[in-house]
Amino acid sequence: MSNLIQTGDNADITKERRNATFDIHDMSLFLYGSEEILKRRKEMLAFVKSKPEFNDPIPTEFMNREQRVDNGARKIVAMTDNTDEIDAGDFFGEGMYFQGLIMGRDLHPMSLHYVMFLPTIQGQSDDEQLDEWLPLTISRSFVGTYAQTELGHGTNLSKLETTATYDPKAGEFVLHSPSITAAKWWPGGLGKSANVAIVVANLYTQGECKGPHPFFVQLRDYDTHEPLKGITVGDIGPKLGFNTSDNGFLLFNNFRIPRRNMLMRYAKVLPDGTYIKPQHAKLAFGTMVFVRSIMIKDQSTQLAAAACIAKRYSAIRRQGEIKQGAGEVQILDYQTQQLRIFPVMARAFCFMFAAYEIRDLYMKVTEQLGEGNTELLPEIHALTSGLKSVVSYEVALGIEQCRMACGGHGYSQASAFPEIYAYAVAGCTYEGENIVMLLQVARFLMKAAEEVMNGKAKLADICAYLAKRGANKSRLRTADEYRGDVIIEDLEHVARNQVFRAYDSLKRKEKEMPSEEAWNKTAIELCKASRWHVRLYLAKNFLHKISTAKGAIREPLENLARLYAFDIITSSHGEFLRGGFMSEAQLDELKGGFYTLLERLRRNAVAIVDSWDFDDKELHSILGKRDGNVYSSLLDWAQQSQLNRTQVLPTFNKYLGPMMKEGRSKL
Amino acid sequence: MSNLIQTGDNADITKERRNATFDIHDMSLFLYGSEEILKRRKEMLAFVKSKPEFNDPIPTEFMNREQRVDNGARKIVAMTDNTDEIDAGDFFGEGMYFQGLIMGRDLHPMSLHYVMFLPTIQGQSDDEQLDEWLPLTISRSFVGTYAQTELGHGTNLSKLETTATYDPKAGEFVLHSPSITAAKWWPGGLGKSANVAIVVANLYTQGECKGPHPFFVQLRDYDTHEPLKGITVGDIGPKLGFNTSDNGFLLFNNFRIPRRNMLMRYAKVLPDGTYIKPQHAKLAFGTMVFVRSIMIKDQSTQLAAAACIAKRYSAIRRQGEIKQGAGEVQILDYQTQQLRIFPVMARAFCFMFAAYEIRDLYMKVTEQLGEGNTELLPEIHALTSGLKSVVSYEVALGIEQCRMACGGHGYSQASAFPEIYAYAVAGCTYEGENIVMLLQVARFLMKAAEEVMNGKAKLADICAYLAKRGANKSRLRTADEYRGDVIIEDLEHVARNQVFRAYDSLKRKEKEMPSEEAWNKTAIELCKASRWHVRLYLAKNFLHKISTAKGAIREPLENLARLYAFDIITSSHGEFLRGGFMSEAQLDELKGGFYTLLERLRRNAVAIVDSWDFDDKELHSILGKRDGNVYSSLLDWAQQSQLNRTQVLPTFNKYLGPMMKEGRSKL
Ligand SMILES: Cc1cc2nc3c(=O)[nH]c(=O)nc-3n(C[C@H](O)[C@H](O)[C@H](O)COP(=O)(O)OP(=O)(O)OC[C@H]3O[C@@H](n4cnc5c(N)ncnc54)[C@H](O)[C@@H]3O)c2cc1C
Ligand SMILES: Cc1cc2nc3c(=O)[nH]c(=O)nc-3n(C[C@H](O)[C@H](O)[C@H](O)COP(=O)(O)OP(=O)(O)OC[C@H]3O[C@@H](n4cnc5c(N)ncnc54)[C@H](O)[C@@H]3O)c2cc1C
Repeated sequence: MSNLIQTGDNADITKERRNATFDIHDMSLFLYGSEEILKRRKEMLAFVKSKPEFNDPIPTEFMNREQRVDNGARKIVAMTDNTDEIDAGDFFGEGMYFQGLIMGRDLHPMSLHYVMFLPTIQGQSDDEQLDEWLPLTISRSFVGTYAQTELGHGTNLSKLETTATYDPKAGEFVLHSPSITAAKWWPGGLGKSANVAIVVANLYTQGECKGPHPFFVQLRDYDTHEPLKGITVGDIGPKLGFNTSDNGFLLFNNFRIPRRNMLMRYAKVLPDGTYIKPQHAKLAFGTMVFVRSIMIKDQSTQLAAAACIAKRYSAIRRQGEIKQGAGEVQILDYQTQQLRIFPVMARAFCFMFAAYEIRDLYMKVTEQLGEGNTELLPEIHALTSGLKSVVSYEVALGIEQCRMACGGHGYSQASAFPEIYAYAVAGCTYEGENIVMLLQVARFLMKAAEEVMNGKAKLADICAYLAKRGANKSRLRTADEYRGDVIIEDLEHVARNQVFRAYDSLKRKEKEMPSEEAWNKTAIELCKASRWHVRLYLAKNFLHKISTAKGAIREPLENLARLYAFDIITSSHGEFLRGGFMSEAQLDELKGGFYTLLERLRRNAVAIVDSWDFDDKELHSILGKRDGNVYSSLLDWAQQSQLNRTQVLPTFNKYLGPMMKEGRSKL
Repeated sequence: MSNLIQTGDNADITKERRNATFDIHDMSLFLYGSEEILKRRKEMLAFVKSKPEFNDPIPTEFMNREQRVDNGARKIVAMTDNTDEIDAGDFFGEGMYFQGLIMGRDLHPMSLHYVMFLPTIQGQSDDEQLDEWLPLTISRSFVGTYAQTELGHGTNLSKLETTATYDPKAGEFVLHSPSITAAKWWPGGLGKSANVAIVVANLYTQGECKGPHPFFVQLRDYDTHEPLKGITVGDIGPKLGFNTSDNGFLLFNNFRIPRRNMLMRYAKVLPDGTYIKPQHAKLAFGTMVFVRSIMIKDQSTQLAAAACIAKRYSAIRRQGEIKQGAGEVQILDYQTQQLRIFPVMARAFCFMFAAYEIRDLYMKVTEQLGEGNTELLPEIHALTSGLKSVVSYEVALGIEQCRMACGGHGYSQASAFPEIYAYAVAGCTYEGENIVMLLQVARFLMKAAEEVMNGKAKLADICAYLAKRGANKSRLRTADEYRGDVIIEDLEHVARNQVFRAYDSLKRKEKEMPSEEAWNKTAIELCKASRWHVRLYLAKNFLHKISTAKGAIREPLENLARLYAFDIITSSHGEFLRGGFMSEAQLDELKGGFYTLLERLRRNAVAIVDSWDFDDKELHSILGKRDGNVYSSLLDWAQQSQLNRTQVLPTFNKYLGPMMKEGRSKL
């Protein structure tokens, strides 16, 4: 049932593959959507493997920062030399996969050029500017980045300190950093690679501040690459991850740029300094939803990779006996090991399906926007902010869960877990700090709750549950019969309860204190409401999606989706006990059902991760190798350690050697 | 109220210190135990600062691995040259502090020499061996390590594959690694630094396997440091953390050592090959308890450091407004921020007090063992295994919580969080993998439960609650009155319930299947029981400890301890609702109480972390600096980036430069 079996593979992993109850190709098809997509994945993989310039001379984990940055620059040039090989317009599908294969789990010197600089140029320049800048951007005539965050401000953009003051005499903007905290800080590639940037600065004209606006700014000489006069720029130093990227800082000392370097599709400054307000403030919104869909796909891929590594390793790792004398078991057989990994796997599927759904919603919204319809906007905006937050946090926890489940070897960089974690967990912070995002969702939910209370709610699908009158008791009878609609009803009950509990609490507090203070004092409950809102959406979408699966893959998918839901319910069982909505007997039944699902998922454990179609090149993990021959590969991998170049390190003769000699001489 | 205030400090942090309701010296005293200890900390700090050889030429985060190893070797020689400066016998107190100040958060090339090699020599050699090896160890005539774990086996020691076969003709043991998985893997300093090791190998004599035993083995030539013939040794490559340590691998090819290189205090092999069984199998136990107390102290210190960084930074970081137009607030004022950090702080105190208590228990046990009394052994063994597991896991989560609470800057290595996390989280794996530990505790708890059921339990303090008959309803009335004994009663109720629920479930399953299988199928519930057992102990000890505090520090300590308990209860409220033990009204009251405690702790937030007496040298964090002048320091710190040595990196002329030139030429 698996085309991944080869002779010479570890016997345990082959046994797992033989035992699977479904064909992994069918599962891949269900996951990725079409035969064509799977075929394209294979073609892209073959292409990347055929080009030696995409290889790393040594695995990146053995490189220091300079080598990483150098290697990253080399590869990104090679990669973008070859974009004809893919449908570059389909970043969600082909682009991400292609880039992941070549660049690995890291940013690279041109990440921001493609992820933020190009879309901003496309979206915010007027036609004339577009004619000028777009060809330069696409032809890679410069390397751009997106410089918004400052040392002192990330979340609260209205307080950015960098100023762009219009000088009508010269027809120029003067960019200036009035203090240290005004230094731009974090932009990817800004330190050493970029020579231009979109700089977000507070616009001053005719003595008035008009708020943050984007400007096109050249930072370095196009030929010598030296920073221009009035510009101080550099690398911000090593980070938890992303060390191939030269995230940078930037300070302006009265640096002048032409008036037309302000991006003028929406807001404008006329030659005399007159400010023209933008017409549609919400138009950037579509891009945000799209970026979120990409992010969620990326996050679920990382989580699936972690689960894949942990499961394959747990299949070949034999440690301890369950029955004394019966021989060591695969650690995958321990119930606790299953608890560590299987729910993580379920989440990866769940989040991936959500990513696809959001991508589809994005297309729908874009279409509607074209027709001037903005109805779906607030709901989807709230949903994606919340998804970004819940998904990235659970992904981070899940990766570490998988890593620890691999014992000592999980701690080695050979496992790839340290890299996966550092890469994914950053998603909790960038693109909107997670807690800030949840509070944003809560604003929307409180508005919706208010409307429901006033009886004039017009809620689209995602929020309809808020206006529903649900049952007082869960209809759960046996765990096996607990499926689809009944599960959703119960999650809706709890989500609705939490939203209205937060709402009531907010209203109560608003009677005692100013409303802003009341908001802050309800913030934790508000975040909880947002999380339940998102979890409900995730579970609903997951259950819905798997209900369309046919054939042998249906059962394992059902098991995964139900594991996901049972996990949520049993681990927050207090919420379900409240008001007698569920009885303890019902919860115990569900807990039993959860353990049964772990057992049922055991048999297909490896096949399920195999269906994600990770090639060893993509996974980049010794523990997660397809063939399961982990131990010999660990030994080979370690030979490449910087420290193994000589038997005796120079340091021996400097410190430990003389110390020991002295020690012996004294005795 | 704070001696940490200096002119030039950030105004917000000074305001916080001025506002404190207690003197931080009093709190430090309560935390560390005596004026003498505080004085010694100051002296050690002054000494370390006075010696330039303890400085790093550049901060270690800017070093590559070779530089780190070299720097580590240099410093550890310097440090051990100066052990006269401290009471080296008091590792729990002076040793750890001294080492932390000099070596930072990392292992070093001689960590295992001191932590495992030396104690094993002391504890397991017979008198003659001791005479030979101890002076060499102490005089640093060789560098030792402890080689137990193999590629294939860590947890299940009985299956170690390295063999030590006794050859009576030669009077020698033949050490051999019969397969790749037999390679020793992980021992600290084994790769490049150590020239001797305690090797744990399965002993064969007279054709029989006698199980794992320790052997003293020379690995490298004492003069040239080249590996001896028959020995393959090297570094295992980069890890999540600990990259100053050359954790190593080791393979034997029929390597011979004299018979007397077997450590013979307990088991022996006579010249003719006769095996003499050890008398007291449990004697190594005391050391284990001691190591655990060290580990728990270390873990709580790391957690407190993380909380300290997050709180100080949150005091100086202003971001967003609560009241519009009223100016940006310190992020410490956001309820969600308090939720992220304050409970972490409470845990750090809780764990630290537990570490002290375990150290005291260790002394008590050692005394009792001296009198031949082993009564306390099983309870304490179970407790410390459980503590190790619960504490290390919660510490890991807490550190990441603090890191994320610092937004983007938390992700930079300037924050120190990446280092603290990598260092602390390893504790979830070494010294007994966490889940394996919890299952060990569960064995003990199930035995105790069985005894209670049979009415013949003889339980010491720590487990007495298992035999108690508690109330059916919580006595909680108002959150403010909910203190000490009542809290403990309630936690006891839930812990006892979970232990007996697991016990019942195990017994039920044992009727349907072999008992080992039943065990495995109850494993998750068993781990839960272990966790509650430990949490109960932690809360009890915390509440007890703070009840001895006097004066102004009493109130903040009470707030911390109650926050700790309220947090446990509200976040597992389902357990307390079960059987109507608590009502929803009671839980809501408690939740309200929890929010109130966050507010009450706000005022002393900075003072509380200040009392941990972290010097900037120890904290090693730009975000956590005493003076709060974070932003300018971040800029200074970043200047040291490897990438900032030149304005234009060599890579520019190789890749990005030519690419851009070509791009321009095409247009
Ligand atoms: C790897 C990485 C790459 C990045 N790349 C770029 C880039 O290319 N270009 C760029 O411009 N920026 C970049 N950034 C910066 C990033 O966008 C910001 O770090 C992010 O927006 C968070 O803002 P902050 O750092 O100011 O966090 P802060 O807002 O300071 O958050 C700190 C704490 O305060 C809390 N907080 C803040 N405001 C509120 C509020 N209103 N209510 C309640 N709590 C609040 C947060 O919850 C958090 O706990 C990058 C960051 C990282 C980590
Ligand atoms: C930083 C670091 C430093 C180290 N230093 C040293 C050193 O100096 N010397 C040395 O000898 N070793 C050292 N080690 C090795 C360390 O002691 C082992 O990694 C540790 O004991 C865990 O064993 P393992 O790796 O075999 O994990 P495994 O036992 O393989 O664990 C993998 C998974 O299997 C599960 N599992 C295993 N057995 C059972 C069971 N019976 N029931 C249920 N689940 C089970 C675990 O819960 C885990 O999820 C070090 C490790 C690290 C990470």
